[in-house]
Amino acid sequence: MKWMQGEIENTLFVGLVLENGKILDVGRGTYALLPESHLPMTMLQCLEEHENAIEVAEKLLSYDEQTLRFYTYAPEDVKWHAPIISPYKHVLCIGKNYAEHAKEMAVGATPPDAPVVFTKAPDAVIGPHDAIPSHKGTTSELDYEGELALVIGKGGRNIAKKDAFDHIFGYTIVNDVTARDLQKKHMQFYLGKSLDGTCPMGPYIVSKGAVTDIEKVTIKTTVNNEVRQQGVLSDLLFDIPTLIETLSEGRTLRPGDVIATGTPAGVGKAMKPPVFLKNGDVVTITVEGIGQLSNVVRDEV
Amino acid sequence: MKWMQGEIENTLFVGLVLENGKILDVGRGTYALLPESHLPMTMLQCLEEHENAIEVAEKLLSYDEQTLRFYTYAPEDVKWHAPIISPYKHVLCIGKNYAEHAKEMAVGATPPDAPVVFTKAPDAVIGPHDAIPSHKGTTSELDYEGELALVIGKGGRNIAKKDAFDHIFGYTIVNDVTARDLQKKHMQFYLGKSLDGTCPMGPYIVSKGAVTDIEKVTIKTTVNNEVRQQGVLSDLLFDIPTLIETLSEGRTLRPGDVIATGTPAGVGKAMKPPVFLKNGDVVTITVEGIGQLSNVVRDEV
Repeated sequence: MKWMQGEIENTLFVGLVLENGKILDVGRGTYALLPESHLPMTMLQCLEEHENAIEVAEKLLSYDEQTLRFYTYAPEDVKWHAPIISPYKHVLCIGKNYAEHAKEMAVGATPPDAPVVFTKAPDAVIGPHDAIPSHKGTTSELDYEGELALVIGKGGRNIAKKDAFDHIFGYTIVNDVTARDLQKKHMQFYLGKSLDGTCPMGPYIVSKGAVTDIEKVTIKTTVNNEVRQQGVLSDLLFDIPTLIETLSEGRTLRPGDVIATGTPAGVGKAMKPPVFLKNGDVVTITVEGIGQLSNVVRDEV
Repeated sequence: MKWMQGEIENTLFVGLVLENGKILDVGRGTYALLPESHLPMTMLQCLEEHENAIEVAEKLLSYDEQTLRFYTYAPEDVKWHAPIISPYKHVLCIGKNYAEHAKEMAVGATPPDAPVVFTKAPDAVIGPHDAIPSHKGTTSELDYEGELALVIGKGGRNIAKKDAFDHIFGYTIVNDVTARDLQKKHMQFYLGKSLDGTCPMGPYIVSKGAVTDIEKVTIKTTVNNEVRQQGVLSDLLFDIPTLIETLSEGRTLRPGDVIATGTPAGVGKAMKPPVFLKNGDVVTITVEGIGQLSNVVRDEV
């Protein structure tokens, strides 16, 4: 199941991407075909009702495409939003979670002993087809970081590793765009990671059940079709259960929390000489079985 | 004007603390005395309507206490919440913003060249009379940090220093309780700063207009009545206009954003030998003209 959030005629809706590529408006479909069911209007609300949302979606998808066609849109007719948007919700991110990336960022440094966690600001989040602002007056070192992100369904606290996947609703892709100069200047990562528009997310959330072995999934980032990053989730220094356990120790995880799991080696900062993003560059992140997130960088957004 | 957020009979309300110490229920008062006015039900919504909120409050406060008494509560009859609560809103924090504190945390280190910014998680926020959980299974180095916090009224982006105060609604107090061991272990500050219940906030927001010279305000932290921290806002390495300018460069500040401005020297970690918080300790932060925030530490909360 691929869950997206779109806008049509100025109205936000939760959509399911069908096998034929069309987008099913879950609210309209539910209203017409399953009038006894209830489904909230935003993806965040769906996640808060995790199991109910899955159940309703399964019922809807059991109808044939012929029946569903009255409630679908062509993907190009829809404005795609990030699958989770909120004026307040920060994105949780893991730093230095691939050994080769930890090494390229600080020559000779040993990988971290424990997950490195920071956040990106809510206004950094943009949709899968939005342009990334270059912020050229503010930074001259804008860089990409392709990442698989976990989306929390059921919230919780002190979640044991063995229960970690019970709390994951699904997966999406995040580009943890980073102003390297600000990241360094301000010592803590937050500001350099939080310029407006520097967290493209999407294009959709793939439900956990649709992915057979998340640890084997590969991730690839290209800039203008040149391959820059390649990794496989099994290379994570701290795997998904460890991340969920660490992030929930003495802390509450909430439905809709997004956890970007870290980026493989190959960022622009580590190239010799370093190469940063500029107007017109297209960054494309492909995560096998999860989708493709592609955004252009623009001086004027 | 002192804005608080309370709960009575399971209902959240926005309150104004009157000169006689009583708490005026702004919603009920407005409904009865100013039926043509509209005031939202949460403090966060009030901040989104910054000027309207101030105007309505001024009108209400122009009535005598005799008239207002029908809409007031005794402070002890109310459950006090943090002045701003949201399941999603992170608190923005400035690290190492007093030279002496920067020094005590890393002997020989020079103070930062630019503001150090990180966040605390939404579930860290607790009310002014709530107990701080000791998290004794998770940390053995729980420490206090008394701080003055700015509360953003009007949002904005790329705010110049000279306009900074136009965006501040008022001031409150934050205890940036920190698990020093986690802060160190996880490299970035976020996790060590974000255990549930480790951000007492309040007791209320003092409107900007009620403070004559914020730079001259003193801050003092005691633990069990022993003075540990003393500072004056003019000692900030990065002053309030600089913080607002830095935090809004290429970034959107939103109504209700809380910015904790940093802590003076004297944290438990820097004592010789270090002394950390334990069950029964009472941490009290007094900011001149802004109020007093006092919370007990408890193993069981």
